[in-house]
Amino acid sequence: MADSPSPSQSKATSYRDAGVDLAAAETAKQRIAQTVAGTRTQWVTGTVGAFGGMVRVPEGFAEPTLVMSTDGVGTKVLVAEAAGRYHTVGEDLVNHSVNDILVHGATPLAFMDYIAGADLTVDTVADLVEGVARGCRAHSMALTGGETAQMPDVYQPGHFDLAGTIVGVVERAAAIHGAAIVSGDVLLGYGSTGLHTNGYTLARRILFHDMGLAIDAPLPDTEGTVADALLAVHRSYFDAVWPVIGHMHGMAHITGGGIAGNLVRILPKSTSAEVDAESWQVPALFTVLQQGGRVDTAEMREVFNLGIGYIGVLPAESVTKAVEAAERAGVGTWVIGEIRTGDREVRFTT
Amino acid sequence: MADSPSPSQSKATSYRDAGVDLAAAETAKQRIAQTVAGTRTQWVTGTVGAFGGMVRVPEGFAEPTLVMSTDGVGTKVLVAEAAGRYHTVGEDLVNHSVNDILVHGATPLAFMDYIAGADLTVDTVADLVEGVARGCRAHSMALTGGETAQMPDVYQPGHFDLAGTIVGVVERAAAIHGAAIVSGDVLLGYGSTGLHTNGYTLARRILFHDMGLAIDAPLPDTEGTVADALLAVHRSYFDAVWPVIGHMHGMAHITGGGIAGNLVRILPKSTSAEVDAESWQVPALFTVLQQGGRVDTAEMREVFNLGIGYIGVLPAESVTKAVEAAERAGVGTWVIGEIRTGDREVRFTT
Repeated sequence: MADSPSPSQSKATSYRDAGVDLAAAETAKQRIAQTVAGTRTQWVTGTVGAFGGMVRVPEGFAEPTLVMSTDGVGTKVLVAEAAGRYHTVGEDLVNHSVNDILVHGATPLAFMDYIAGADLTVDTVADLVEGVARGCRAHSMALTGGETAQMPDVYQPGHFDLAGTIVGVVERAAAIHGAAIVSGDVLLGYGSTGLHTNGYTLARRILFHDMGLAIDAPLPDTEGTVADALLAVHRSYFDAVWPVIGHMHGMAHITGGGIAGNLVRILPKSTSAEVDAESWQVPALFTVLQQGGRVDTAEMREVFNLGIGYIGVLPAESVTKAVEAAERAGVGTWVIGEIRTGDREVRFTT
Repeated sequence: MADSPSPSQSKATSYRDAGVDLAAAETAKQRIAQTVAGTRTQWVTGTVGAFGGMVRVPEGFAEPTLVMSTDGVGTKVLVAEAAGRYHTVGEDLVNHSVNDILVHGATPLAFMDYIAGADLTVDTVADLVEGVARGCRAHSMALTGGETAQMPDVYQPGHFDLAGTIVGVVERAAAIHGAAIVSGDVLLGYGSTGLHTNGYTLARRILFHDMGLAIDAPLPDTEGTVADALLAVHRSYFDAVWPVIGHMHGMAHITGGGIAGNLVRILPKSTSAEVDAESWQVPALFTVLQQGGRVDTAEMREVFNLGIGYIGVLPAESVTKAVEAAERAGVGTWVIGEIRTGDREVRFTT
């Protein structure tokens, strides 16, 4: 039941004693092989059934540099299970990964996933891989391999985990690290679609335990259900940011650690960031979570993105161009603060 | 508790409600950061705390081509837990991955790991990452990132999973796919160190259930314990094979699916492979497993490597050179069969 045509990539499912239906596994393999084939790009080379996926380094780089990241989607998988919706968490995983390398100015090239669980069904695996493939296609990125494993002694019954690795490429001299950030630069916040893939353990405790909501109950102050809000797909900022990538002095993907925890990672010595927390509209989901769980503001800011999923740090004169590019990609933006001199810290001014 | 200095890579552990001791997590991060730093190679670029790991594509390739693979170690993790030995499965993972891309003639460049579990301790994570790092250092490969997640609702108490992704590079025109294999070529089998990372579900059932052995009991017909045999590190064939890589018409890493299931993947049309199963000495572990579990020979051959972890397909006149290179690397070899004309099948002649 590997999501590649390779037998070596289904080792934990290759014999009857693992309790796996081999014929069903074969069906899944074929469905998945088709899905994977749909992500093929001009850079893919090699043969079907190979031991490793193969992608040429794109031409036109003087010093091609790989930017890579491995990540999971955390306990968002538990929400997907509770809602019986398995077809979007794969896209969450891909978009999260795309943002992580976009921060350095890299374009996506290849992706590989890892899916393991106690009792994965053919349909669940295919749904998961289709989500991954959808995210890959949206970024012209090849899904070059993956591994699926059944491990009932490791995973809780009915549960699974999903992780993946992205490989992108950037011209070495053009890689963005934040070193260009200077006092006076503007912090442009890009709207998130919700929790993205962070804070699910706390959010689940609040919504399901403290507030006693069901997965399909309406979420207070919103138009949808709890499942709708929690499973909103992690937004990719690639299309919003790429047209103005050359204007960016630094960027931060807002994941675990929140705005401060991630923004601080790119601040050069002698700079600090001031964030005005009243400069953007915090989505209702976060207000519901804070009130429902009586969470103090400091913890809210540490755990959640609070509506800002990505931050661009850029000179004031580039802001209009960046805002327009984001608008064309359907992503809302706010000027949420600025860079000052300081000692590598992020301060909330409100 | 991420095995990189990046806060985004520990999202499932970034707040108190996940039941994680943040101070302990900080200690682990520092220990792990040192381990990771020890794998730095000349190709690593980028900054500490980056959102993605960064490695330059090595110079000297006309058409540099990435060869990538994602894999886990299957239920070998359960044996590591039972034995309380966490420091070698990381090396298993790396060596497995190195072999998968060596098959295509690629040299290792970067590795990323994913470690997730119900209640991972600082020491366990550090042991696991040190195993990964040891495998990386042995191949001059950088450990460029990773993710560690605590998910008690997903994993069984006391259990964890370990997966990883390798990125290697090969000159496109020199990539090996098996297309050069012709009738008359010799199958050179390279000795395995045991199960490597395949067949653990069946092996555990036989040893612990059918035979009722304890993890630290002596393994019949061997000098060590059950744990010693089951945790023998998956052998990397890089040093044994690399000096003669230019002689290889094709290679197969023997993982799930056994000799036939993996060798068939590289056979060109109109060829077949004949394997003489009496041509090498099957290690005692496999004989114990077959007898203890009353497993028929067909299933043994499908699940286990039976002592042959890697196969090189090469012209007869290159065999002596390949055998000598393997000997210098301390790896035993046997001529285990040959290529004939046929319809892409692997036949055992004994």
